[in-house]
This record gives sequence, structure tokens and C-alpha cells, in this order.
Amino acid sequence: MQISEFQKHILTRYGKHDKKRGTAPTFMWFVEEVGELATALQSKDKGNQYEEFADVFAWLCTLANIHGIDLTKAITEKYFSKGGPKGHK
Amino acid sequence: MQISEFQKHILTRYGKHDKKRGTAPTFMWFVEEVGELATALQSKDKGNQYEEFADVFAWLCTLANIHGIDLTKAITEKYFSKGGPKGHK
Repeated sequence: MQISEFQKHILTRYGKHDKKRGTAPTFMWFVEEVGELATALQSKDKGNQYEEFADVFAWLCTLANIHGIDLTKAITEKYFSKGGPKGHK
Repeated sequence: MQISEFQKHILTRYGKHDKKRGTAPTFMWFVEEVGELATALQSKDKGNQYEEFADVFAWLCTLANIHGIDLTKAITEKYFSKGGPKGHK
């Protein structure tokens, strides 16, 4: 699946509601999912890990949509440019 | 770009080092990038926003790689299944 396809899917399903909710409350939902991912990674429940990875990714798309960020462009510029990545340790 | 292509790119470039570092220290790097994304979203620096979205996405791939999670499978099961998403508010 294309990154853009997933980002657009989230936009189509939730975009209007997301835009209305705005950045800060959306960021709180996002961080809540990050916390749930931490819990899942400390468990051995693979199904829950799959779910939480999906949710963090989805909320990242939501934040990107609110701010008009194209995730494909973002990673292409940073991780596939000639200079290579800066910042990934 | 395919989600799997980016996940594999991160695996190829950093996989060995990531595996050695392990979950908890990697999660701390991830959360550091989440914090940098918060800062970027509060600024008007679009370039910085693009960068931080890329980094959060990259570290999410790293965590997924360490745990053998296929991000494409994760989102397909949760956001493209018949029952629809559960958990995205």
C-alpha cells in the first residue's frame, strides 16, 4: 500500500472532524496512542502490538492532514535525498 | 512510495544497530522525536514540520522492525477491514 493512499484514507474518513478538532487536542489523542503502544510493546500480545502501531500511524496521518503535510514528500526529502538522513541515530 | 518500501529502507540502513539497541532505548528516541514534532507544530516553520513528521515516521518503522511488525498489515487489518476501524476517534 502507498503511504499516500493511507494518508488519503484517513483524510476522507476523518478529515472534516479532525480539522475542526484542531492541533492540540489531536496531539493529545496521538500521544495517548503512543502510550498504548508502549504498553503493547511491554506485553507479548502481538495482536495488540499490531493494533497500536496502526493507531499511532493513523494519528500521525491525522496530524499531517491537519497541517497539510504530505508524508511521502517528508520522508523522501529526509531519508531518500542525496545527502542521506540527518537526525536518525 | 509503498509503506513497505520505507519500512524496508529503515531496516536495511539501521536494522542491525536498532536490534542491538533494543526496545526501551529506541522508544526513548521515538518519544524525543514526538516532542520535536510538538515543537514544530507550534511553530510556523513548515520545513521543520516536514522534517519532524519524517523522523517520527522513521522511528515508528524502527520500532516495528525490532518487533517484526509489518506496518502495512497492521493498518490494513485495522483501517481497511470490513468492520472498519476501532479506536480512531
